[in-house]
Amino acid sequence: MKYRFILLVFVLLGPLAARAQNSHEAQRIIEFPDVPGYVTLKCDLHIHTVFSDGSVWPNIRVQEALRDGIDAISLTEHLEYQPHKDDISHPDRNRSHDIAVQSAGESGLIIVRGSEITRDMPPGHANAIFIEDANRLLMDDPVAVFEEADRQGAFTFWNHPNWISQQKNGIATLDDLHIRLIREGLLDGIEVVNDVTYSDEALQIALDYNLTIMGTSDIHGLIDWQYKVPEGGHRPITLVFATERSAAGIKEGLEERRTAVWFNNTLIGREEFVVPLVHASLTVTKTAYIGDSSVLSVSIENTSDVEYILYNKSGFTFHASSDVLTLEPHHTTRIDVKTIERVSSLSLTFEVLNVVTAPNTHPEITLEISVD
Amino acid sequence: MKYRFILLVFVLLGPLAARAQNSHEAQRIIEFPDVPGYVTLKCDLHIHTVFSDGSVWPNIRVQEALRDGIDAISLTEHLEYQPHKDDISHPDRNRSHDIAVQSAGESGLIIVRGSEITRDMPPGHANAIFIEDANRLLMDDPVAVFEEADRQGAFTFWNHPNWISQQKNGIATLDDLHIRLIREGLLDGIEVVNDVTYSDEALQIALDYNLTIMGTSDIHGLIDWQYKVPEGGHRPITLVFATERSAAGIKEGLEERRTAVWFNNTLIGREEFVVPLVHASLTVTKTAYIGDSSVLSVSIENTSDVEYILYNKSGFTFHASSDVLTLEPHHTTRIDVKTIERVSSLSLTFEVLNVVTAPNTHPEITLEISVD
Amino acid sequence: MKYRFILLVFVLLGPLAARAQNSHEAQRIIEFPDVPGYVTLKCDLHIHTVFSDGSVWPNIRVQEALRDGIDAISLTEHLEYQPHKDDISHPDRNRSHDIAVQSAGESGLIIVRGSEITRDMPPGHANAIFIEDANRLLMDDPVAVFEEADRQGAFTFWNHPNWISQQKNGIATLDDLHIRLIREGLLDGIEVVNDVTYSDEALQIALDYNLTIMGTSDIHGLIDWQYKVPEGGHRPITLVFATERSAAGIKEGLEERRTAVWFNNTLIGREEFVVPLVHASLTVTKTAYIGDSSVLSVSIENTSDVEYILYNKSGFTFHASSDVLTLEPHHTTRIDVKTIERVSSLSLTFEVLNVVTAPNTHPEITLEISVD
Amino acid sequence: MKYRFILLVFVLLGPLAARAQNSHEAQRIIEFPDVPGYVTLKCDLHIHTVFSDGSVWPNIRVQEALRDGIDAISLTEHLEYQPHKDDISHPDRNRSHDIAVQSAGESGLIIVRGSEITRDMPPGHANAIFIEDANRLLMDDPVAVFEEADRQGAFTFWNHPNWISQQKNGIATLDDLHIRLIREGLLDGIEVVNDVTYSDEALQIALDYNLTIMGTSDIHGLIDWQYKVPEGGHRPITLVFATERSAAGIKEGLEERRTAVWFNNTLIGREEFVVPLVHASLTVTKTAYIGDSSVLSVSIENTSDVEYILYNKSGFTFHASSDVLTLEPHHTTRIDVKTIERVSSLSLTFEVLNVVTAPNTHPEITLEISVD
Repeated sequence: MKYRFILLVFVLLGPLAARAQNSHEAQRIIEFPDVPGYVTLKCDLHIHTVFSDGSVWPNIRVQEALRDGIDAISLTEHLEYQPHKDDISHPDRNRSHDIAVQSAGESGLIIVRGSEITRDMPPGHANAIFIEDANRLLMDDPVAVFEEADRQGAFTFWNHPNWISQQKNGIATLDDLHIRLIREGLLDGIEVVNDVTYSDEALQIALDYNLTIMGTSDIHGLIDWQYKVPEGGHRPITLVFATERSAAGIKEGLEERRTAVWFNNTLIGREEFVVPLVHASLTVTKTAYIGDSSVLSVSIENTSDVEYILYNKSGFTFHASSDVLTLEPHHTTRIDVKTIERVSSLSLTFEVLNVVTAPNTHPEITLEISVD
Repeated sequence: MKYRFILLVFVLLGPLAARAQNSHEAQRIIEFPDVPGYVTLKCDLHIHTVFSDGSVWPNIRVQEALRDGIDAISLTEHLEYQPHKDDISHPDRNRSHDIAVQSAGESGLIIVRGSEITRDMPPGHANAIFIEDANRLLMDDPVAVFEEADRQGAFTFWNHPNWISQQKNGIATLDDLHIRLIREGLLDGIEVVNDVTYSDEALQIALDYNLTIMGTSDIHGLIDWQYKVPEGGHRPITLVFATERSAAGIKEGLEERRTAVWFNNTLIGREEFVVPLVHASLTVTKTAYIGDSSVLSVSIENTSDVEYILYNKSGFTFHASSDVLTLEPHHTTRIDVKTIERVSSLSLTFEVLNVVTAPNTHPEITLEISVD
Repeated sequence: MKYRFILLVFVLLGPLAARAQNSHEAQRIIEFPDVPGYVTLKCDLHIHTVFSDGSVWPNIRVQEALRDGIDAISLTEHLEYQPHKDDISHPDRNRSHDIAVQSAGESGLIIVRGSEITRDMPPGHANAIFIEDANRLLMDDPVAVFEEADRQGAFTFWNHPNWISQQKNGIATLDDLHIRLIREGLLDGIEVVNDVTYSDEALQIALDYNLTIMGTSDIHGLIDWQYKVPEGGHRPITLVFATERSAAGIKEGLEERRTAVWFNNTLIGREEFVVPLVHASLTVTKTAYIGDSSVLSVSIENTSDVEYILYNKSGFTFHASSDVLTLEPHHTTRIDVKTIERVSSLSLTFEVLNVVTAPNTHPEITLEISVD
Repeated sequence: MKYRFILLVFVLLGPLAARAQNSHEAQRIIEFPDVPGYVTLKCDLHIHTVFSDGSVWPNIRVQEALRDGIDAISLTEHLEYQPHKDDISHPDRNRSHDIAVQSAGESGLIIVRGSEITRDMPPGHANAIFIEDANRLLMDDPVAVFEEADRQGAFTFWNHPNWISQQKNGIATLDDLHIRLIREGLLDGIEVVNDVTYSDEALQIALDYNLTIMGTSDIHGLIDWQYKVPEGGHRPITLVFATERSAAGIKEGLEERRTAVWFNNTLIGREEFVVPLVHASLTVTKTAYIGDSSVLSVSIENTSDVEYILYNKSGFTFHASSDVLTLEPHHTTRIDVKTIERVSSLSLTFEVLNVVTAPNTHPEITLEISVD
């Protein structure tokens, strides 16, 4: 019934939809602050539709992204693995991308042309994004395809190196072929997070070989179901710290390794990028000594989606908590610091336990506080 | 990544998924009691996928139905309107159904073979379900296609007679062609509810011409979004009162006009079928006079999804409410009745305002109560 | 520990508390719009503390009222019934009031001096509010006490005439003594709602004898528990339509019978006062014909706490609902009206089923709509 | 109105109340498992009513405790600080306790006779519980009162040693007088948690001087408001590991230092008592290797109210999380362990970050897992 009617309804429902934004819908928007010098862009660069082995038309991927407040997606269909090929037989392998672009219309969603390169291990699966033409990547040779992607100016990354279907112990392990691709500049990034999985070993490889740290949903079904969005869950994404909100900005950020991954309640990234993000998330909004005491009440506003888990590394003890405390997302938390004597400024240092900069490594942040 | 893995995950996650059932997932299961002599089957018999103008692969329709606790669906693709035909070009118009059957596997979901017959008004759109072969319905003549459906043993119904794209005033109106189809036994039912719309006029036509009262989602996008399922919404469905839980049972129930429609918080149906459903929903679980008074506390359990809105038609007044009261779904409500003197039994009669048996007509129910 | 500390904490927590207002706390504020010519004041004029048979100190009553957004309360302690008299023995029967006034401080909460007059039936219990001195009401004669209240300028009302401890059938019934009190101007109002009870018969008495329609909590324990406030419940209150927000304004409004009672999801009052309240609650914020159809989409914003249950009395039928529909509190509902032909204005008339103006009587409202 | 009616209503509403237990009410019950050899009793042993400087009658304290699933309370009124003495003048200082005992009736709630000893620092405030007669503690001498408590067989503890009204820097500090009281066996415990405050220094004193670790609400207002119970908060309590559920069992447990404190999401206690509690909270309910991989899925059920924050100390890495993970309360969490090769058993060791055994010290737990 609806086919001529969809846009019309959208227009008419606008004001009501905007109201709904205040309740349930608004809660799913993924929110992170910008960091000094860069805008923080929320990207999901590994996604499937019915054009490979996914279960939805590209327009649903666009709508999911808009509902999640995502800045950029890439529909990275398998070129070789086409289980729906009896039904979907369009000869152009760019088709999925083109439909998504049309669906996105003037919404502002950035859609990056990409493709999955599907191989047995090694090298396993990889994505080439920011390509010119997916059709030209349809070739057998496992190295030649990366060379072709490179000719097209692609950014490439290794998908789910921990995938137990290709790596039975789940331990991401570099093969000579991977090292060759990296050395030749044909492999730029690696998924540390894919769907519901995380890999410490992939993170170590990223650090050892200077690869871009990536996290993607690799969604095949529905985002809402896979990540229990109505219950407060979210898809994994790559945060790209970009000089501008554009496809070019994202590409440059990825190439320069300026990323972090947002996965469940964990942030993963190089210290130089995640620490500024934590700092940008937190603002000391108020300080006040309580009564005539030397206990200082410090109010910290957290404008990010992260519930930060902090481990006190200062000499101070707290009047209302032990040395482990949490800062709820989008909430102001008050920390009462026993400063022994009244001071005009102080530093609070915390290890941030749910931020990961290397396996078993969590960064410290220091809040420099001037007493009001 | 997931393609060889999906079933495995399903098996492993079984117990955890079962737990989840206790919280969010369980809440979306649509629940109605059986009625004397019949099982109450929840059916959505007008649905689209990418095989016509919908946005999902048939497997998503199966999963949505399982999550909603639906008993039966029919994928009624347009035969003529094929906006994805450049991409999806399987020659067999039964393809969508066959994929859904495979997806449903051993889940117990009943999938009824169906097809939409897409015409300008008159006669507009119709669905033929319980057909043998959709391909044979692909013909131009607006009457011949109904005759072919009839030869295949189909149950047919008129879709969204109130559709403003075909009927600018939204008033369902019979044309001579409709009357001819009805007279020749080629049109069995009519949608009183389609998607988010309801039609009093369609209901009157159903009653005047003895058509089956139908309600369908006609879903093209995602059920969860279209009906705000996470916020407590549900798709419209046809409740079929069947002699058995089977495709044959549903067909017989439809043919015999034994249906009701569940739409938002409204139940629509013939009095002979909805009144037993209301009665089956409500059980007086306890009665007790309060203290030494003549105020009788009557506890009524409502085992349905409906919040019944009751209008008191008894001579009695109530000690804790005015004459309009509501019975929350899946909840026991206590009504304190001022019986003036103590009695051993009494009747409470209510008009049930959100049950509709004809335009502007709501049935009365009488609860016969024995005092414990 | 806290005794010198309470005010300090309050000041310091101010900003955080304000934030909390955005979530849980804000939801319990009872909200009704003003009506033409009057401010709508939310009053609970029958309340107990430990100074008679209640379970809390007067400061808790003040805090409950502030959390509920109540404008005025009266602590109407029993003068005669003093179950805590072995423990609480202050000789001044105004003590509870005086402590509450001190607790309220600069909060703006209006505290009306009152007292309960506790008698067997007839005349049963009554409240005298706006008195000068509770001590002077401590006398045996059932008529003399009303005369003394009158000398003090009190407004008096009959409490819970439906109380089954004094009226076994729960049927509010006038005795000669009541009639005498009314005739002599010594009894001004009657509780139609007390705590969790409602009385159609009390409403009829109010109408027959021109008494002020009252609803009170008569709270003894905690408001939050008794009315399930965290689950969305609220205490019963009397809405007084006053010329100004002051004790004098409330008294004048009560004397002039300008009240309505808000009880569960029911509004009870004289038609001349509740109909303007319903109208003040509802605003047509937008109208638009859908596409090129003659179905008019009318958006109605409801700024009150009431979920209005509407019964369509227009000739029109609706495109998205039957003739019974609800307007959620603090929400905009869209009604799609089938106007047959395009019109520039129309009237929609509804019976408002959960507004009660007399037993079994619900007012009609008419929305006059200009098409944008 | 309700005064003769309360018990009756309670009886009649029983079944409905039981239903309500399934929703909101049930969620506030504080739940911890028993540990080997002991029952885990939930105690709040520092509470005020109108009989000193609190704001409620003792019956409300009983009802709050029953709603919270508390096993034992003590109404520890100030003997000396009596701000309501103009109003409440019962000569017997046991009065509050006696009323509470009567209110508790057959509910099973244990009510321990206690009293607060209110002094300037040193020694500050203390509680004496399990006393015989509060009246006999009303004396000036700061040591003699502890000796009298001792004669009565009391268990005594130092209240809020971190209270900024008596200790401006909030740092709990022992005075010679405290040491004398401890040495003479006149001071048995110390509050590490009081109301919304926590003290690392008090915990260190408890460990250094072998005092019982105590946590109390010291409630003056309403539990529901002070601890935001409707939003999921809870009062601080002392968990006593007792040989039996009785007053005597609690006293023996307190004297033997077998306690832990439950405060926000933190558990504080001696390692020998909190580690068994953590173990009792967690059960490995299922293990299974995923597919043909060597990734072992381990399901851990958490039957406590604590959201445990775990820090991985095993050699293993995880397939679905970094080294910091949380176990939701009353939920089963699946941890996928990369065991490299398939094994028949393994140990998982975690530091439990929100369990505190000494300042900046968190215990390790080891889960010994047999693969199914």
